[in-house]
Amino acid sequence: MSEHVKKLNADSDVKIVDATLRDGGIVNSFRFPRGFADALYRANLAAGVDIMEFGYKVSKKMFDVNKFGEWKFCDEDAIRAVVGENATNMKIAVMSDVGRVDLKCEVLPVSESVIDVYRIASYCHQIEEAAGMVEYCNKMGYFTTCNIMAISKNDVSTLKGALEVIAKSPVDVIYIVDSFGSLYPDDILRVCDLYGETAYKYGKKLGVHAHNNQQLAFANTIAAYSKGVEYLDATVSGIGRGAGNCYLESLIGYLRNPKYRIEPVLEFVREHMTPLKKSGVEWGYDVPYLLTGLRNVHPYAAIDFLKAGREDYEEFLREITEDK
Amino acid sequence: MSEHVKKLNADSDVKIVDATLRDGGIVNSFRFPRGFADALYRANLAAGVDIMEFGYKVSKKMFDVNKFGEWKFCDEDAIRAVVGENATNMKIAVMSDVGRVDLKCEVLPVSESVIDVYRIASYCHQIEEAAGMVEYCNKMGYFTTCNIMAISKNDVSTLKGALEVIAKSPVDVIYIVDSFGSLYPDDILRVCDLYGETAYKYGKKLGVHAHNNQQLAFANTIAAYSKGVEYLDATVSGIGRGAGNCYLESLIGYLRNPKYRIEPVLEFVREHMTPLKKSGVEWGYDVPYLLTGLRNVHPYAAIDFLKAGREDYEEFLREITEDK
Repeated sequence: MSEHVKKLNADSDVKIVDATLRDGGIVNSFRFPRGFADALYRANLAAGVDIMEFGYKVSKKMFDVNKFGEWKFCDEDAIRAVVGENATNMKIAVMSDVGRVDLKCEVLPVSESVIDVYRIASYCHQIEEAAGMVEYCNKMGYFTTCNIMAISKNDVSTLKGALEVIAKSPVDVIYIVDSFGSLYPDDILRVCDLYGETAYKYGKKLGVHAHNNQQLAFANTIAAYSKGVEYLDATVSGIGRGAGNCYLESLIGYLRNPKYRIEPVLEFVREHMTPLKKSGVEWGYDVPYLLTGLRNVHPYAAIDFLKAGREDYEEFLREITEDK
Repeated sequence: MSEHVKKLNADSDVKIVDATLRDGGIVNSFRFPRGFADALYRANLAAGVDIMEFGYKVSKKMFDVNKFGEWKFCDEDAIRAVVGENATNMKIAVMSDVGRVDLKCEVLPVSESVIDVYRIASYCHQIEEAAGMVEYCNKMGYFTTCNIMAISKNDVSTLKGALEVIAKSPVDVIYIVDSFGSLYPDDILRVCDLYGETAYKYGKKLGVHAHNNQQLAFANTIAAYSKGVEYLDATVSGIGRGAGNCYLESLIGYLRNPKYRIEPVLEFVREHMTPLKKSGVEWGYDVPYLLTGLRNVHPYAAIDFLKAGREDYEEFLREITEDK
């Protein structure tokens, strides 16, 4: 019964996207220890990661540079200090949320930038604006993705409408994002079919970004992979907002694809993630995240619950059930 | 996209088996704080759990009563001190490993016992002996299960042979046990088909007992459930050897079956599991468990690695790879 050990998926189309600095940065306001980003870059290169997301590109007019570390803004110089001209096969990505940046003020032509990929994060109701941002980045020469957030809150027809809009844009990859960690693997399979219907019609690829509220981030990611989703987000030790994300080390272990190596990630866990956790940075599964996942509400409620030192789970469950 | 919220599985044939004391007891030599078992019994009753496993029934000639807490032996008196005559709908189970007990010396006729269910744990090569134990317990009036362990180490034909032997016995439920936490949800689906082929032919039910080495215990349990597996093992907060088991609270949340309630489990987590963890009892996902899961080896190697305070994951991976 160990057929899976022999599983060898040499499908060169799978792409691992490391979102450690970006989604992890939400946990500590992007204030990582000195040397963290450099070591992660080297680990990702050695592990064969395809795309490394450095952080957000947001407007400095809207966010105070004194309140966040450098990966909230991803200046070209900050990235270059880590990667030089990045003369490697690994692509560099940044994420921009609709409404939090004027890309026309920020985006250089790709030939002048060390960035390769813009990932546009959008709620369904902002999809027209997201499509505009995609179009702009595409014109400037970038590979683009659109990450449609909080889809567990949308009905199928709203989501279909949004998919139609973004699939008609020049976007390269459309992402399934389980923002609230509320989806189960069987939901993911259905969502993949729904996304595929529109995306493949327009020649787009699919990606997946899962959250670990119910300890299903990895299971949901490999469920999507089984449906042909090619862009798989993960973070080292699952670091990310609240319950965190799919563990990069689990994903590489599962894929058994010769282009990836798990050892550099294991080394990074020991040298950088364990000390980060010991320093007091908090992320990962906990009961309140399970409950917000179950009730399909934003994990902020759980983060606040934990910050307040509360343990009255039953009352919390009532609160988030009534809020719905 | 929130259809799962409306999912209502009122299939009365699903049975939740709480293995907290038994698999959790492996972690602390069955030495739980005073009142723990009583509170768990009340929580399980209030939560609607179908079967509560109290621990092992092993021979006191083979295991020193001074080295283990009472749930290693599950004397009738010890169980009765918690449950009285258990005048409830919840069944009481114990587990016996092949070769660790002479049931003829231990098992009372069911009419004189507070125990309802014997779960016989067996490796494939011991299956004839397991079938004999099942037969004896069945004759004495008990409901029986057979939990075939370490199946990820067996080839399909060996497993089929063992299934045929046990399915011809009077066993009520045959369990799929992922002892090493090495199986993925797609493996589980295949294993369910394989078990079902033989089990259903002889009118047997199926059960599943998953381990969390790759953070897939819950995902694997609900994958089995999706294939019609009816007996689902879980433990509160996933407590169990090494990486632990499927979380009872996650499973109840998922099932959305009106016969189960999550609140009593949440209360038990706060009042008993959080203090247990704070007292130094250790279980749950960690990197070395991921690696033994990936390499399909016994988690003992990972437990030893952690006890030794080692962090050289890459070397550990080489060791368990060469050992294979």
